[in-house]
Amino acid sequence: MSKDKKAIYKPKPISGFPEWLPEERLVEQKWLDHIRKVFESYGFTSLETPAVEELEVIAAKGEDADKEIYVIERLHKEEGDKEARLALHFDQTVPFARYTAQHFNNLTFPFKRYQIQKVWRGERPQAGRMREFYQCDIDVINVDNLPISFDAEMPAIMWEVLSSLPGMENEQIQIRVSNRKILLAYLEGIQCTNAIEITRIIDKLEKIGKDNVLKALSNLGLNDFYSNQLLSLANIKVQHSQDLKDAISRTLAHIDIADFCGSNSSDHYLQDLYVGIEELSTLLNSLSHLPEGAVVADLSIVRGLDYYTGTVYETVFVDDPGYGSICSGGRYDDLAGSYINKHLPGVGISIGFSRLFDRLRSAGKLDTARKSPTDILVVLPNEEQRSAAAETARTLRGKGYNVELYHAPQKIGKQIGYAEKKGISYVWFPPFDMDGGHEVKNMNTGEQAKADPTSWTKN
Amino acid sequence: MSKDKKAIYKPKPISGFPEWLPEERLVEQKWLDHIRKVFESYGFTSLETPAVEELEVIAAKGEDADKEIYVIERLHKEEGDKEARLALHFDQTVPFARYTAQHFNNLTFPFKRYQIQKVWRGERPQAGRMREFYQCDIDVINVDNLPISFDAEMPAIMWEVLSSLPGMENEQIQIRVSNRKILLAYLEGIQCTNAIEITRIIDKLEKIGKDNVLKALSNLGLNDFYSNQLLSLANIKVQHSQDLKDAISRTLAHIDIADFCGSNSSDHYLQDLYVGIEELSTLLNSLSHLPEGAVVADLSIVRGLDYYTGTVYETVFVDDPGYGSICSGGRYDDLAGSYINKHLPGVGISIGFSRLFDRLRSAGKLDTARKSPTDILVVLPNEEQRSAAAETARTLRGKGYNVELYHAPQKIGKQIGYAEKKGISYVWFPPFDMDGGHEVKNMNTGEQAKADPTSWTKN
Repeated sequence: MSKDKKAIYKPKPISGFPEWLPEERLVEQKWLDHIRKVFESYGFTSLETPAVEELEVIAAKGEDADKEIYVIERLHKEEGDKEARLALHFDQTVPFARYTAQHFNNLTFPFKRYQIQKVWRGERPQAGRMREFYQCDIDVINVDNLPISFDAEMPAIMWEVLSSLPGMENEQIQIRVSNRKILLAYLEGIQCTNAIEITRIIDKLEKIGKDNVLKALSNLGLNDFYSNQLLSLANIKVQHSQDLKDAISRTLAHIDIADFCGSNSSDHYLQDLYVGIEELSTLLNSLSHLPEGAVVADLSIVRGLDYYTGTVYETVFVDDPGYGSICSGGRYDDLAGSYINKHLPGVGISIGFSRLFDRLRSAGKLDTARKSPTDILVVLPNEEQRSAAAETARTLRGKGYNVELYHAPQKIGKQIGYAEKKGISYVWFPPFDMDGGHEVKNMNTGEQAKADPTSWTKN
Repeated sequence: MSKDKKAIYKPKPISGFPEWLPEERLVEQKWLDHIRKVFESYGFTSLETPAVEELEVIAAKGEDADKEIYVIERLHKEEGDKEARLALHFDQTVPFARYTAQHFNNLTFPFKRYQIQKVWRGERPQAGRMREFYQCDIDVINVDNLPISFDAEMPAIMWEVLSSLPGMENEQIQIRVSNRKILLAYLEGIQCTNAIEITRIIDKLEKIGKDNVLKALSNLGLNDFYSNQLLSLANIKVQHSQDLKDAISRTLAHIDIADFCGSNSSDHYLQDLYVGIEELSTLLNSLSHLPEGAVVADLSIVRGLDYYTGTVYETVFVDDPGYGSICSGGRYDDLAGSYINKHLPGVGISIGFSRLFDRLRSAGKLDTARKSPTDILVVLPNEEQRSAAAETARTLRGKGYNVELYHAPQKIGKQIGYAEKKGISYVWFPPFDMDGGHEVKNMNTGEQAKADPTSWTKN
């Protein structure tokens, strides 16, 4: 590039690929550190999988997933390149299931892992939609049998995480749980042949409203009686397991109540219905230590991804449920097993991190006063004192502080101004000559006092 | 997916996209945490940029870069899609320069940032080559003028990082520095018209050897005298600034030594030569607090990327220089300015993290005894004691430990076996009935003793 005439290429922000300013990134790091800490406190181990999977591994896992897949390709591909087609992962559940199957012999089960990585979804660009975002997932996969206690652990951990993120203190959230077996068993019971399509319509209940749901169900050939009954089921929202059983019994009054009470019914669908209700009840009972309203059973929750087989979760802002779910997941009994000849049931839940972060960021609810991790700026008095000042910086660093030495012997006001602009709390003045001493200025209080770098501690 | 007949798709590892086992990932996290801590201790602030940039932003930045670029595309692209072509970033310097230009008005300068993200290079798959890997970068960009003291700070920080990574204690590394101005000014002085091609050949000196370099230079039309002189220059390896000046003076004996000693030469190339030598000397002087041999000036270092304009760095294992550089970078005075109408000189250095990590991993030099972050496994004595045991786990978690509650009331031997397999250090036995007490077993010593969850501390 010639110094004389330079070509300016002015880059544009790329829609759907957000990037934050340094002070925002500092809060994002705090959030990610906090989430990691809570996940680890429950014994989940970290995992990372590549950004890409074979296209065949991730295609066809859900309604919208295929449309959103990004494939990658080398810019200058050689002729006759026979490599497998690769695609960026759109979630972390499918990669985790694939990983567990692939490394099966090297893992200890139940295998509890967390995964905090970016995922990519090639959605149409529209306001608020992200094409690249962080997800924070916890999942557990076991061999043959995965106790329902894990289904209960997931939302309890996420409640702890979400309610303690800095900036989330005043946000009221609610985790909504359901069990896909209930609606699916009901639909099997009425001999419905397009159950998946119907559940997808139910999933949109909150978004499109009751009337549109009824219309859509009718279009799919469901008669009015069943449509209304299904809608009554989907409208069940209860917090306690006995209320759940009562509400379902009332709604499905035509089914012999005795069948509910025994799991030995001869009808397959009744068994499934029973299991679904029992699992969901157990979940509610196990979460009763959480605050009132933290968790609610909501039978309209279905989730769009096809691999869920039982428990499903969503999480909403109580005062803005239309914003959509910020933390979702569920039980997938057959996913990992689709890559290996074993039964590997799993359950997991995931924070849609970047969207949540961006909501609070845009609303000005994050503390972005600091623009760098620096605790102390050491002033450079003059060029002669550079090594002495560098030594002071090293001493303070050795005590665990983050320390910058100012780079040039500029006017003191300018050096202090730099600390101010970056939100640095302390400015350190090393000796200006052989006879001088150290002083430190607290930028928050304005106080300045003599100090010794070997013994000083921050308030 | 039907439960009866399931289609097994057996995934294959994807060449060049490594993934680690949980115990390896734990060490990787330790490394990344350590690197972050050191970077922050010098006041560098974290930044993340999207995985993609506009293709136009990252294309044509260096010799091999274009060949290695991955573009991304939506699997089901709509007709008439007019969006800009996007490519995965192949380094973090170009995205950082682009970011700095784009957010110029919101940044405080000098802008010191670190960036720890994955980058992608679509190289031909071959042994040891990674297509996805972590880089750990520190860079600083300033407006108009960037003091050479920053060029000296970069390798000092990286020396501290690399020599203190767990597992690197016994590895002897050396940071090699040079200044591109020296060779380029020399080539300008001899009126060479293909300086970039020639420096690229010099860059390969260690790899292809002296004879092949001479042959290649001759093919480019350089005469024997200049070729040999150039090679003598490139062969200069010294640790102290005076030795550097002496060696260059000897090699370039035909240039009037007086011109070296004053920067006011009328010849442009002599000025550049002088500046390059002075900058490199200053660098060596500023790094004299590092151990003998940590840093050496090596004039054969050029770096393949075209954006470097002065200082360049490489880092090698002393006993295996052929392995290539594990930490590289340099000064780029014109890169960020190519996106905005300002002069924004920068300097930075980057650890090729994943390749370095994999080297130690493959050599068995990492401590992979732990397979999870769990400190304590709480035994589940029986189903009746589940909530009491869960309460014990919560108490211990509240004291800052990572705690797993075993999921099922299986035989104690099986529960202890789980802790053993995962390398968990403590197994906690909560009361088995109303009258019992707590005990804890240290899995390393085998000792078991009474304990109180509210007051117990790990040794």
